[in-house]
Amino acid sequence: MLETTTYPAEVLHEFSARMLETTGVSPGDAALAADVLLAADLRGIDSHGVARLRGYVDALRSGQINPRPEPRVVRETLTTATVDADNGLGLVVGPRANEIAMDKALDAGSGWVAVRNTNHFGIAGYYVLQALERDLIGWAMTNSSALVAPMFGTARMLGTNPLAIAFPGHEEPPIVIDLATSAVAFGKIEIARRKGLPIPEGWAIDADGDPATDPQAVYDGGALLPIGSSRELGGHKGYALGMMVDVLSAVLSGANWGPFAPAFAIAQTPPGSVGAGIGHFFGALRIDGFIDPDEFRRQVDHLVRTFRASPPAPGTTGPLVPGDPERLAEAERRRHGIPLIPAVAADLEALAVETGIPLGA
Amino acid sequence: MLETTTYPAEVLHEFSARMLETTGVSPGDAALAADVLLAADLRGIDSHGVARLRGYVDALRSGQINPRPEPRVVRETLTTATVDADNGLGLVVGPRANEIAMDKALDAGSGWVAVRNTNHFGIAGYYVLQALERDLIGWAMTNSSALVAPMFGTARMLGTNPLAIAFPGHEEPPIVIDLATSAVAFGKIEIARRKGLPIPEGWAIDADGDPATDPQAVYDGGALLPIGSSRELGGHKGYALGMMVDVLSAVLSGANWGPFAPAFAIAQTPPGSVGAGIGHFFGALRIDGFIDPDEFRRQVDHLVRTFRASPPAPGTTGPLVPGDPERLAEAERRRHGIPLIPAVAADLEALAVETGIPLGA
Repeated sequence: MLETTTYPAEVLHEFSARMLETTGVSPGDAALAADVLLAADLRGIDSHGVARLRGYVDALRSGQINPRPEPRVVRETLTTATVDADNGLGLVVGPRANEIAMDKALDAGSGWVAVRNTNHFGIAGYYVLQALERDLIGWAMTNSSALVAPMFGTARMLGTNPLAIAFPGHEEPPIVIDLATSAVAFGKIEIARRKGLPIPEGWAIDADGDPATDPQAVYDGGALLPIGSSRELGGHKGYALGMMVDVLSAVLSGANWGPFAPAFAIAQTPPGSVGAGIGHFFGALRIDGFIDPDEFRRQVDHLVRTFRASPPAPGTTGPLVPGDPERLAEAERRRHGIPLIPAVAADLEALAVETGIPLGA
Repeated sequence: MLETTTYPAEVLHEFSARMLETTGVSPGDAALAADVLLAADLRGIDSHGVARLRGYVDALRSGQINPRPEPRVVRETLTTATVDADNGLGLVVGPRANEIAMDKALDAGSGWVAVRNTNHFGIAGYYVLQALERDLIGWAMTNSSALVAPMFGTARMLGTNPLAIAFPGHEEPPIVIDLATSAVAFGKIEIARRKGLPIPEGWAIDADGDPATDPQAVYDGGALLPIGSSRELGGHKGYALGMMVDVLSAVLSGANWGPFAPAFAIAQTPPGSVGAGIGHFFGALRIDGFIDPDEFRRQVDHLVRTFRASPPAPGTTGPLVPGDPERLAEAERRRHGIPLIPAVAADLEALAVETGIPLGA
């Protein structure tokens, strides 16, 4: 285990918001972006929270991301829209586009919004939790810079392209599904490299397309594998899901798809451009457009309890329900604070020194 | 290889339709059902075509499935609906419900239909190909009788719950995604058992929840694994996707979810009932609700060509695009006929003898 320093959620939220404001982001937008970042840290998805604050700040300072975007709807029907996000922070324009999808759903039963000319939007789970608050079933997807090889290929052609959807329970907590379409997150390769440990076969390939067990091979021109890993175990299915997310988020909106998706870090430039920025895709469905919402919630409770009560696999405490680990992390971190690894804490301290904005009281 | 007998597509279509008519299905419905069955056989998804004709006929004869259903919309908004399918053949009520979703999309940009009190609907791919013909992006999902274990569980709790979506190209063929959320289809276990071969680790577990390499163990109380297989390789993601399909198809419609989904074969009865029949979920999106459809198709072409041109993995001919294998199968089978294994051919011959309806000229 790495030694961590623990910060209260409010401290990280205020620091993130004030830091974004120094780059020209409006106070309202900065607070919203800090909400999205904090949701990741609270839910234990450490790679998508304040660990990325330095990256966002650098991109805003350099002009790679527009701090004062004016997103506009470029095409629309009653229940669909495409938003050009004016190269804004995904953490700001993502929530606004998601609201358009939710408003359309409340009006007409369903709403679907594709977004182009945007940047990384944090965790997909944030957006579907927003939909739950309005009694909607929410969907969220985004493409991202290429890291994943196609089935029968060796090059990095797709991002880890996550997909999220959530369903409310009545007495039970909601089912919250939020998954990358790669077998593992890149962060797991990073951790293994830092610790000098091998990675299991099925996570990645080296530059020649052979199975990688040395994490360094992924940095040296290798690629992640899609969910399912090999053809034999269904890797073509994870690959197809990653492509689905790419087409809905980026082709349908007019953003850069596949290997053309711009990288989070300025240093890595893709081979050209086929659209604007990266792309997101949001959806919302009214539950009462299909069934009595109380009946739906009761059945979700029944389902959740039935799955939990089913026999455990050897050496486990029994079946989990999607969203369980993140909810437990959030309860723990709201009480005891958010642990940051030394590299992330040092990043934030450096930002504090640069700007004179204190990290905590 | 098993020796196969080859039948022209038209012969199997006519035979299927006439056979369904003998059970009281109307001529129009029987022809439609035969279309859906034939789509599976043409596309090489042999488990979902005429191999199931005997099962459908038996269920219709016994009254387990209603030959003359009167499906009705039980709840509706401008862009959503729930259909009670009156316990009809999924092959008949599925296409009708899909049409409602497509009509709503043409009117209002998007359309979403949940179906309950229905039965197995054939291949999910059929429905999204129908949407392509109307220049729509179609989605199709269904739940089915439980075969798949949850992550950290040992019991059969979810069906192989497929998910399909398709995107049209301009000069290139469409991207057609149609995947079960289990690591493999049950048919692969069946084939291994018949041949006396072991199965690879990652496909299934035995009754104790330990990895199964003997296919017989799956029959003796074991279960299939979700895409991703193990926790380490992302099996919790495949599990979450299977649950997503279950909730959208069955909880949202008021059908039987999870382990309560009725089996295809009458002999296997689930432990009770929490709804009506099984459930499907159909969606449709108007492409021109987001982007100029010509631009969309050109970008899909560009994407398909870019992926195909990317470096091949060792020992392969290079990256496939989802839908390639099925399209190649269809071209081959339209030309040379549909090969049936002896067990399926014998089933059809027996039906021919029972009814006096000839199998071919």
